[in-house]
Amino acid sequence: MSSEPRIDTALSPRYAQLPTFMRMPAATDPRGRDAVVIGAPYDGGTSYRPGARFGPRAIRAESVLLHGVGVERGPGVLDLLDVVDAGDLDLSPFAMENAIDEATTALTALYEHNRAILMLGGDHSLTLAALRAAHREHGPLAVIHLDAHSDTYPPVYGGRYHHGTPFRHAIDEGLVQPQKMVQIGIRGHTPNPGSLSFARDRGVVIVTMDDFDELGTAGIKRLLLEHTTGQPVYVSIDVDAADPAYAPGTGTPAPGGLTSREILALIKVVGDLQPVGFDIVEVSPAYDHAGITSLLAAEIGAELLYQYARSLDAVPATPALTVDHDSSPGRNNR
Amino acid sequence: MSSEPRIDTALSPRYAQLPTFMRMPAATDPRGRDAVVIGAPYDGGTSYRPGARFGPRAIRAESVLLHGVGVERGPGVLDLLDVVDAGDLDLSPFAMENAIDEATTALTALYEHNRAILMLGGDHSLTLAALRAAHREHGPLAVIHLDAHSDTYPPVYGGRYHHGTPFRHAIDEGLVQPQKMVQIGIRGHTPNPGSLSFARDRGVVIVTMDDFDELGTAGIKRLLLEHTTGQPVYVSIDVDAADPAYAPGTGTPAPGGLTSREILALIKVVGDLQPVGFDIVEVSPAYDHAGITSLLAAEIGAELLYQYARSLDAVPATPALTVDHDSSPGRNNR
Amino acid sequence: MSSEPRIDTALSPRYAQLPTFMRMPAATDPRGRDAVVIGAPYDGGTSYRPGARFGPRAIRAESVLLHGVGVERGPGVLDLLDVVDAGDLDLSPFAMENAIDEATTALTALYEHNRAILMLGGDHSLTLAALRAAHREHGPLAVIHLDAHSDTYPPVYGGRYHHGTPFRHAIDEGLVQPQKMVQIGIRGHTPNPGSLSFARDRGVVIVTMDDFDELGTAGIKRLLLEHTTGQPVYVSIDVDAADPAYAPGTGTPAPGGLTSREILALIKVVGDLQPVGFDIVEVSPAYDHAGITSLLAAEIGAELLYQYARSLDAVPATPALTVDHDSSPGRNNR
Amino acid sequence: MSSEPRIDTALSPRYAQLPTFMRMPAATDPRGRDAVVIGAPYDGGTSYRPGARFGPRAIRAESVLLHGVGVERGPGVLDLLDVVDAGDLDLSPFAMENAIDEATTALTALYEHNRAILMLGGDHSLTLAALRAAHREHGPLAVIHLDAHSDTYPPVYGGRYHHGTPFRHAIDEGLVQPQKMVQIGIRGHTPNPGSLSFARDRGVVIVTMDDFDELGTAGIKRLLLEHTTGQPVYVSIDVDAADPAYAPGTGTPAPGGLTSREILALIKVVGDLQPVGFDIVEVSPAYDHAGITSLLAAEIGAELLYQYARSLDAVPATPALTVDHDSSPGRNNR
Amino acid sequence: MSSEPRIDTALSPRYAQLPTFMRMPAATDPRGRDAVVIGAPYDGGTSYRPGARFGPRAIRAESVLLHGVGVERGPGVLDLLDVVDAGDLDLSPFAMENAIDEATTALTALYEHNRAILMLGGDHSLTLAALRAAHREHGPLAVIHLDAHSDTYPPVYGGRYHHGTPFRHAIDEGLVQPQKMVQIGIRGHTPNPGSLSFARDRGVVIVTMDDFDELGTAGIKRLLLEHTTGQPVYVSIDVDAADPAYAPGTGTPAPGGLTSREILALIKVVGDLQPVGFDIVEVSPAYDHAGITSLLAAEIGAELLYQYARSLDAVPATPALTVDHDSSPGRNNR
Amino acid sequence: MSSEPRIDTALSPRYAQLPTFMRMPAATDPRGRDAVVIGAPYDGGTSYRPGARFGPRAIRAESVLLHGVGVERGPGVLDLLDVVDAGDLDLSPFAMENAIDEATTALTALYEHNRAILMLGGDHSLTLAALRAAHREHGPLAVIHLDAHSDTYPPVYGGRYHHGTPFRHAIDEGLVQPQKMVQIGIRGHTPNPGSLSFARDRGVVIVTMDDFDELGTAGIKRLLLEHTTGQPVYVSIDVDAADPAYAPGTGTPAPGGLTSREILALIKVVGDLQPVGFDIVEVSPAYDHAGITSLLAAEIGAELLYQYARSLDAVPATPALTVDHDSSPGRNNR
Repeated sequence: MSSEPRIDTALSPRYAQLPTFMRMPAATDPRGRDAVVIGAPYDGGTSYRPGARFGPRAIRAESVLLHGVGVERGPGVLDLLDVVDAGDLDLSPFAMENAIDEATTALTALYEHNRAILMLGGDHSLTLAALRAAHREHGPLAVIHLDAHSDTYPPVYGGRYHHGTPFRHAIDEGLVQPQKMVQIGIRGHTPNPGSLSFARDRGVVIVTMDDFDELGTAGIKRLLLEHTTGQPVYVSIDVDAADPAYAPGTGTPAPGGLTSREILALIKVVGDLQPVGFDIVEVSPAYDHAGITSLLAAEIGAELLYQYARSLDAVPATPALTVDHDSSPGRNNR
Repeated sequence: MSSEPRIDTALSPRYAQLPTFMRMPAATDPRGRDAVVIGAPYDGGTSYRPGARFGPRAIRAESVLLHGVGVERGPGVLDLLDVVDAGDLDLSPFAMENAIDEATTALTALYEHNRAILMLGGDHSLTLAALRAAHREHGPLAVIHLDAHSDTYPPVYGGRYHHGTPFRHAIDEGLVQPQKMVQIGIRGHTPNPGSLSFARDRGVVIVTMDDFDELGTAGIKRLLLEHTTGQPVYVSIDVDAADPAYAPGTGTPAPGGLTSREILALIKVVGDLQPVGFDIVEVSPAYDHAGITSLLAAEIGAELLYQYARSLDAVPATPALTVDHDSSPGRNNR
Repeated sequence: MSSEPRIDTALSPRYAQLPTFMRMPAATDPRGRDAVVIGAPYDGGTSYRPGARFGPRAIRAESVLLHGVGVERGPGVLDLLDVVDAGDLDLSPFAMENAIDEATTALTALYEHNRAILMLGGDHSLTLAALRAAHREHGPLAVIHLDAHSDTYPPVYGGRYHHGTPFRHAIDEGLVQPQKMVQIGIRGHTPNPGSLSFARDRGVVIVTMDDFDELGTAGIKRLLLEHTTGQPVYVSIDVDAADPAYAPGTGTPAPGGLTSREILALIKVVGDLQPVGFDIVEVSPAYDHAGITSLLAAEIGAELLYQYARSLDAVPATPALTVDHDSSPGRNNR
Repeated sequence: MSSEPRIDTALSPRYAQLPTFMRMPAATDPRGRDAVVIGAPYDGGTSYRPGARFGPRAIRAESVLLHGVGVERGPGVLDLLDVVDAGDLDLSPFAMENAIDEATTALTALYEHNRAILMLGGDHSLTLAALRAAHREHGPLAVIHLDAHSDTYPPVYGGRYHHGTPFRHAIDEGLVQPQKMVQIGIRGHTPNPGSLSFARDRGVVIVTMDDFDELGTAGIKRLLLEHTTGQPVYVSIDVDAADPAYAPGTGTPAPGGLTSREILALIKVVGDLQPVGFDIVEVSPAYDHAGITSLLAAEIGAELLYQYARSLDAVPATPALTVDHDSSPGRNNR
Repeated sequence: MSSEPRIDTALSPRYAQLPTFMRMPAATDPRGRDAVVIGAPYDGGTSYRPGARFGPRAIRAESVLLHGVGVERGPGVLDLLDVVDAGDLDLSPFAMENAIDEATTALTALYEHNRAILMLGGDHSLTLAALRAAHREHGPLAVIHLDAHSDTYPPVYGGRYHHGTPFRHAIDEGLVQPQKMVQIGIRGHTPNPGSLSFARDRGVVIVTMDDFDELGTAGIKRLLLEHTTGQPVYVSIDVDAADPAYAPGTGTPAPGGLTSREILALIKVVGDLQPVGFDIVEVSPAYDHAGITSLLAAEIGAELLYQYARSLDAVPATPALTVDHDSSPGRNNR
Repeated sequence: MSSEPRIDTALSPRYAQLPTFMRMPAATDPRGRDAVVIGAPYDGGTSYRPGARFGPRAIRAESVLLHGVGVERGPGVLDLLDVVDAGDLDLSPFAMENAIDEATTALTALYEHNRAILMLGGDHSLTLAALRAAHREHGPLAVIHLDAHSDTYPPVYGGRYHHGTPFRHAIDEGLVQPQKMVQIGIRGHTPNPGSLSFARDRGVVIVTMDDFDELGTAGIKRLLLEHTTGQPVYVSIDVDAADPAYAPGTGTPAPGGLTSREILALIKVVGDLQPVGFDIVEVSPAYDHAGITSLLAAEIGAELLYQYARSLDAVPATPALTVDHDSSPGRNNR
């Protein structure tokens, strides 16, 4: 539980006050926290629709619906973790290599002084910075990666870094253990041997949407447990893993994707693992409507923090959910 | 079948003329009807995004696609029931307690003179008025409640009534039988013991989304039959039961919700029960796009009326649907 | 593989240059091609929301995300087929019978000189022209038809042709074999005996959404194989087969529809058949947002072309998809 | 003042009840009225962006802000005139010549039994029907025509009638006196001698935007008085006369147009003339946002009705407006 | 100049970090400041389109474009004034009288400890609270009021307070000097004697849009100088004073309004007066697009603060602007 | 007049076929033309809202309304000039210096083989490339620059080039003659001495919006004639010169700007000068609605081409516009 005074939603309506993530306390130089939420407003690596630089602002704005404060709410994320919103990384929109380096430095400093980070993107290229920082602290990482694209693409258009490259660099730099890396939601009607085979050749497990339909959520959860148990795990979620119906506000949407329910069900496995870092990226608000993409991203971020609390044994394991059960999980405050 | 002349869609395109619900006859002081459709344009009880005051207008506008007139269409709702659109309740936007009282009085009068009511919201706070009116006619009610939130929240911000409170008041006032009440679609990543346990302690069955995934549509239907058979049933559907992908136009959206198909499948059970009142609430058109939320609400309303006709034995039971079957249900006029 | 030079996406970002379908070569009078993509910008037959005249432009604009060029991508559609974008049919917006006749003449000429056509609508009335043209080349056709509506409606409002009539005319004119015709996605809460029974009486198999829920994707695939194997097949996909959550940008949306995943899974059967013509119609961009409807239509069109290549034995059959499998399908370039 | 009971806005909020124009009484077969408001939901004559078929519904929806009821409001339009909303013309979307004929018949009947008509479009092609009907009652008409386009274009695409032709047909049919016809707002960077010279050769005064800038509102008013005084005048306002900033929701927008203030100032001259018919056309709501185009159209319609009342000597002439003046005009209820 | 460290826009892009107004320092309990910016997220008094509760958040989000920090920018607002963003008032959405009282108390406290307040609305009803607070500090106030509506309407729908009443209550309570009150932008096509004559009878000068066209910006400025010089002045700007083309995102839009240039030119007079309080209200973001209404509101707020600095002799008078002049005002950083 | 066959709008509706600018012929390697239209889809230099990479596509899409083909239209741009649409520059989104260099090379080649260029942006940083190319052909250039910002800002965020710098580099590189450079529309409520004084110190004439209000369109035209007559002139128009009401779809909007009429009137002076190059930049379609910003940009581009034809004596001088005049300019085809 954070030491700062929290906003009491029973006094302050959720649309009031500066919107930090889940109405957490703001803290610009956090130290000693269980977790830190940090925005990465950057989209210089976007190959199609830009706009993810406005992602952190939009995710925070919608996240106030997911507040976890006050006695009415029981043990919410803010009761379970000492977590703060550290604002945004200040990144150059004009000089990509600078931006990646600045992000790496800042995230490394955050890891030194705090336990875990949830990064709100921003485009996917900054995940490389987050992996570098997490690797420095935890060594080679297992990865759970939800995305429509494997992001193991080579450089293109003269750009060493872009939003299709983070995992290729991460593998090349030894930041991750490719055989302990699972990519879920990959799709498209024909193969791209160049980037997919790069990953597969190194042991990455790629779960296409066809695979997903075959294995089901339960099967994928088992797969994740098999591949990542006992390892420090980084969880990276590109919101375009979801179908455009659920996440229109993104830069390279791909039809035939996951539903919000599937994503939220899937990441419940994270509490049974040893997660050390998280991101939710590629929200491009100018293409969103009614905030549904940002809200989904916020819900994913909130769930990841809750699962992080679970992984720390800060909460009892989720009880079996049946309609007879008195303690089944509930609802957001309303 | 209503006594008034109906709009003939073969002569009048569906976008023409003042849009009553499903192009029903308008009747400002209806008497002796099987059912009455009434709008409740009010959003004074909204805790987050307002705008549901424009819900009835928007639902009617989209509902013209669901017309049920003319010999081409066979036994449609307007052939099966004497049902009219009675316009809107006139409710103060500025004085909440007045609004609830005015609504209670007006709905009570409608019940006195007609058989059933379908209320188009408006925010959920007015369901309390509808329950009071239905209770006066039918005694303590069983309830089928689809929603992301249990709406058994206590007063907050100095407001005795708001859109999170109707079922708490209804239980406290004895309008409903909590052990014959089923809430479906409840979700959120952490419990709110205060409001959920209020309901559970009194016997309400809460079907969370996790429960839903486990039980499936068929399981929930059985549950509804078990809990509500033989009782006068009130059916209240908050459009935010649907996932924001299906219903972006609402005030407190919650990712991870029901699909339109699941909702429409689920409410087919209503024709096998003894329904006495219906509402579809929380449509906030300023957050909708292309009318999809309003259209879903209209389709739900139309299906509820059709099921109401079924419950009166006005139609034969839906035949088993197979592709071999000559009489399987069909399509909207186009 | 087309003879014209192709755009190299490694040099030209996907948002650059005039957007042909999938960045194909443009060719205004194509001859000797495996397939021709042609737009049909027309909405004079629309009974509710117009705007499908802008469909081809919008589908092309989104389709650039689905480019299939360059060595990085492996055998994509443009590697497998000699296919070009022939631009649009020039059709009168004001004189419907002229428009249908002009379309018939132009499409017939395209069939004479090329092997198959993918038509981008436009409203569904032009499918009649496409069926007339395909019939002239291939005789009576089997039909796979995804739609919320059976489009076997009679004339109305003094219009011999409109977007609800193409399959009624096609049956009456003997263009199709009704017993080899399957309609999938048909829905609505009450029957329209007039138009559905017209189809069923002639042997058309109508798969309602309730049927779909019962049979599942696998069951429907079997049904399609049973009914259309060994026949020249025309595939017509009205984007309103998809639920409005997935396809808000259409003229007569109907809640309770198919998901994008279901549609994309279903049409994979087409490669096992003998398809001769394709259309994807009823995209109305003014009601779309973030291009999700157009993008879904583009993905469907791209998949149909890929399946067409499969049907010509131009590609090996899709390998069984498992996470162990090295050759499982991949992703779009990003 | 109309004989029907009126909605009392002090009791019924403006967003409640079925939205008739300015919350007027609805009357489907009006007789003996000073004025009748009628919708013409039709866009079969649109050459670019369709959607004006939804214009009447959208204009009515926004017009409720302009209510003129109750003692608080003083002599409003509904106090001054016996005026009703007669609903919509039922017009074929598929058979243009039928639609024009049906509209002519229906409008002629309305003129026989009532004094004046305000038609809410719909596309501009229906103005021909209105001119035929008004001509039958009043003989050759003077015309005040605000538009970006002169609408004296010849037939094209095989369509005898379309939204660029009404005034060419009207001149050819002798319905109007071209030398008593003034067109205001005409613009575009190069001449179209074919259609403009057709008009000019017959004596029509064309006021381009450059002319407008030179003459000013006062100059144009003088011009209108000179050309139309002493004649029965028909006033036709295409909402695209306004700049797209003020009226984005239209089919063929043209930058460089009039402001809302200029249009509203200009039409104040109408009360000094002998107007007999009015229309406001080409509102295409799918391209509007926040209803601003529909609201402007509604305000224009309301002002035209007020000026009509003035022309009947039903109100005193507008007093000179100065800030010292006690009786200067005021504001809408709020 | 504020004592807190400021965001350096040369290091932090404008879309980064939590958006305070003009990127000012945030300070929750400010004391001793020249000015305090405070949000009033409340729309319980809205009679038509609600949503102004989201106004403060949206205005702040757009205001970051108007940053005034760093040496590059010269003497900007943040260089000239010690001004902070104090966040939002926490106001009940459900209990209007509570909300007004809470706002009055909080604003009174702010006035006690600081010199001036800029309130970001929220609906116009809260201006009453601001006037009560300013009056307690400064006695009866002169008022400059830009609005489409005079807001001297009586209570309605059982609501003592609503957004049409603040100035009626303020006159009744003696908070303002009606003869030193000027209302600008008032419009509508017929008089509302009840509310306008209430104001005029007490000496309020009402400048309708017709008056505005006659007097021009220069004339109105003279009028304002004449009426308010030598008095403590409160400046209240309802964004609906602007035409809907400039401010679509508002609750009761009225065509025929002011342009952004006219408003910005007009309020330059404020620096020559003795202003003590400011508000900019009625921004309803759900009806806005591309943030243009919020951005206009932000620009108005920024200009008011700059004029406030001028009124304190913190800056030299604006130099005459000519193209020969070296010191003419410039531009925002970009 | 171009040598290629043109689209005949009398046969092909304007929404049909691939949208080149004004439906011009497309030609990928143009030579010997009077003018070439080229897109510059790039937004890597954007400091706030990105998205201008989609500008060329959107401007072309709306420009089809401004077609200038066919005998009905008289001497339109396509009759007067041999002008083609050369597609887009292929520019790296990830490597800004590469992009500027690639653009410089490509534009230089176009100038070598053709007479003039109209560039459709893209963000303003590419104007530097265009100035370099034009300078190579024509020596130091006079400049007419419409913009809210002077774009003489220094590098920031590690980016040598960005959209606020083109004219600073152009002055530093000697590409332009600063004393023959006029900037119009510059605004903001406080000075930025750093960038404005850089320009003024070198002789640039800066016309702020206050200056504009004082001088009027006629005065500014005189100023432009005085400063640029007899020189090769480059005309650069940032669409944010227009007020956000007219051009919401841009990256750094600024309230208080020019109207579309003022811009269109102002650039009529260009035909009296010796223009050699043109651009219209900063259209960001994701923030546009109903295409109004793109359409304004297209109209500006079309007018610039027409004025270019005038400057070549290809058309007679525009006749004085009076309502008596037979030859006054007309309208777009409709």
